[in-house]
Amino acid sequence: MSIDYKKELEKASKRMILVHDPDLLIRLMIRMIVQKVRVTHCSILLHDRVQDSYILTVSGGRTGLKVPEGFTRMDLDNPLVRFFRETKNKSLLNNEVLVYEEAKKLTNLIADSELKDLLSKVLYQMDLFETTTCIPSYFRDELMGILLLGNKNTGAKFDMDELSFFIALSQDVAMNIRNAQLIQELKNELDNKQSLFINTTKAMAAAIEAKDRYTHGHTSRVTTYALEIAKKLEQKNKKVTDKKFLGDIQIASLLHDIGKIGVPESILNKEGLLDPEERKKINEHPMIGVNILQPIHELETVLMGVKYHHERFDGNGYPEGLKGDKIPLIAAIISVADSFDAMTSDRPYRKGFAREKAIDIIKQESGKQFDPYIVEIFLETVAENKI
Amino acid sequence: MSIDYKKELEKASKRMILVHDPDLLIRLMIRMIVQKVRVTHCSILLHDRVQDSYILTVSGGRTGLKVPEGFTRMDLDNPLVRFFRETKNKSLLNNEVLVYEEAKKLTNLIADSELKDLLSKVLYQMDLFETTTCIPSYFRDELMGILLLGNKNTGAKFDMDELSFFIALSQDVAMNIRNAQLIQELKNELDNKQSLFINTTKAMAAAIEAKDRYTHGHTSRVTTYALEIAKKLEQKNKKVTDKKFLGDIQIASLLHDIGKIGVPESILNKEGLLDPEERKKINEHPMIGVNILQPIHELETVLMGVKYHHERFDGNGYPEGLKGDKIPLIAAIISVADSFDAMTSDRPYRKGFAREKAIDIIKQESGKQFDPYIVEIFLETVAENKI
Repeated sequence: MSIDYKKELEKASKRMILVHDPDLLIRLMIRMIVQKVRVTHCSILLHDRVQDSYILTVSGGRTGLKVPEGFTRMDLDNPLVRFFRETKNKSLLNNEVLVYEEAKKLTNLIADSELKDLLSKVLYQMDLFETTTCIPSYFRDELMGILLLGNKNTGAKFDMDELSFFIALSQDVAMNIRNAQLIQELKNELDNKQSLFINTTKAMAAAIEAKDRYTHGHTSRVTTYALEIAKKLEQKNKKVTDKKFLGDIQIASLLHDIGKIGVPESILNKEGLLDPEERKKINEHPMIGVNILQPIHELETVLMGVKYHHERFDGNGYPEGLKGDKIPLIAAIISVADSFDAMTSDRPYRKGFAREKAIDIIKQESGKQFDPYIVEIFLETVAENKI
Repeated sequence: MSIDYKKELEKASKRMILVHDPDLLIRLMIRMIVQKVRVTHCSILLHDRVQDSYILTVSGGRTGLKVPEGFTRMDLDNPLVRFFRETKNKSLLNNEVLVYEEAKKLTNLIADSELKDLLSKVLYQMDLFETTTCIPSYFRDELMGILLLGNKNTGAKFDMDELSFFIALSQDVAMNIRNAQLIQELKNELDNKQSLFINTTKAMAAAIEAKDRYTHGHTSRVTTYALEIAKKLEQKNKKVTDKKFLGDIQIASLLHDIGKIGVPESILNKEGLLDPEERKKINEHPMIGVNILQPIHELETVLMGVKYHHERFDGNGYPEGLKGDKIPLIAAIISVADSFDAMTSDRPYRKGFAREKAIDIIKQESGKQFDPYIVEIFLETVAENKI
């Protein structure tokens, strides 16, 4: 049965370009070679950019071929690696492919004793791996990998069609791997940047919170509770959320009390009751928070949480006295999470309520202080022991 | 002169996969078609993911062919777009290609009046664009674009070899564009995340700074000065910096006084001289800053700037009394920037020094308070009016 290599290659390329996982790409390629061309075994030495060495990543085909111990990672001084990294050696080869029999002839013809020595070592390694053919792939001048092929099942030599198929395939793979690596690197960088952003915000929010000696750990607990309510909401009702929803809730919860930085310490830490003037000052904290974060336009939704987390469903909250569904969802969620933590935490002048009592109060305040729909969701998370 | 299309295609693919700019990819493809196959003109309708419509992105070849006004953006109800988005229509075509003459025959054979009507409109559009052949490209089932070809210069029809070349090329381009878009989207996301991080840090640092009524705008000015010194240093001496250097300097400058959040307002805002106890409390701010940021391990270098920005070159600074080159570079830079701003800013109880006087003092303190090498760099930025 003859194979249309051009077609196979096109099909392979298309499949590969959709895959953004280097390991999977290599497995695909090796499987294809073993199946289509019927090779006893096939493996690939792949460049590891982090450690600048080459790893025998996957090997497929006939079971039982063992990779000699200690040979799974090859340094830059490994003969095979050295031979193919030295681009001037390309001129010694037909189509950049190193075939065992030809290489053997070559060693007898070469005058340069150093190169002769290197080639002998390469042949020794090919013996070790039972490799008849090495096919390097380059990205620009960088050696990305070497494909190591065993024998054909029939014992015949590879013909020109098969060799060009391997070359094209391995070139395709090298470039796709390069793309996949780039995409992976960008994704990692993005994850790191996100966690840097969250962690810095957390640290600064905690530092600001520390000014208020009554509220140790409050921000972090409110964030946990609000996230649980939000996840449950998203699970039940996709319509009301967007893909930034959980991220926004997290940031808004971390920042909900940021405006306390603008309230004098003497008021924040006052023992005993606050007078109306002091109470007014404390109630300014949502608007102070808004003023701090206003310039950051990516935080538009977050700002709604900071601004309105002290609004009440019945319209008796602050700063604007918004009512019912005029209160943004993000603020309604933080409001429940915030109150639950305030009730259940100890304060220097009183012990926190028992969990059950706080839950009862939240139920009673459904439709008064709190949005009934959010209370419902909150109670479900409580029932599932998530809060 | 006959062309080896397979070779051309391989060359094109290799070139394209290295390009991560969708516009450039399309220009490359169109140039190749016009040059190699000698087509009168050639354009491509490309999917715009943001607006979910199709744009006639580039058109090459014979000059003088005008795109009719109002036809450069095509909505989803455009006949060409509708025809190719409806994947069941593929079965009507040979190799998914729509050739004008064949489509004309087809309209006479089709019974379905709706489809007949659509195809007539498609033909009308092909007339309008002087298009003989339409070649769609898909990513999975999504229509990425349509390649619109004019006549061959010779007037002859495209043969099978040429058509398969176009199909493969346009498929390659579609997939490469998809990759390029993905990479571009990730890069944009990364930029957005970085600016969100910087802006949030700035906003919070400014809010914390506002607690100290003597230092309005200080953080932002110190950041500007430190960045100028760092850029000059990087320009003169690559060896001492790494690629994160400017980013680290920016964050460290923004955060250098973050520890003031832990100093009581009564001390920060005290009028008149501080007593030794109060001075000691103020001098704790670098270590308070370190405690706040310590958990964020990505900020390791930044932390050195926060911790040691009050060290002196002669070893008489705080918190550790580090001396000379034991003081991290990032801290030595912030130290100069910080002092320069402190000297040149007005305070409620005194006017700031003139710029020249502050510069003189920094010169005098070279080797005492400040690292002489950094003073040298600072003076260069001053000479170039960058500070």
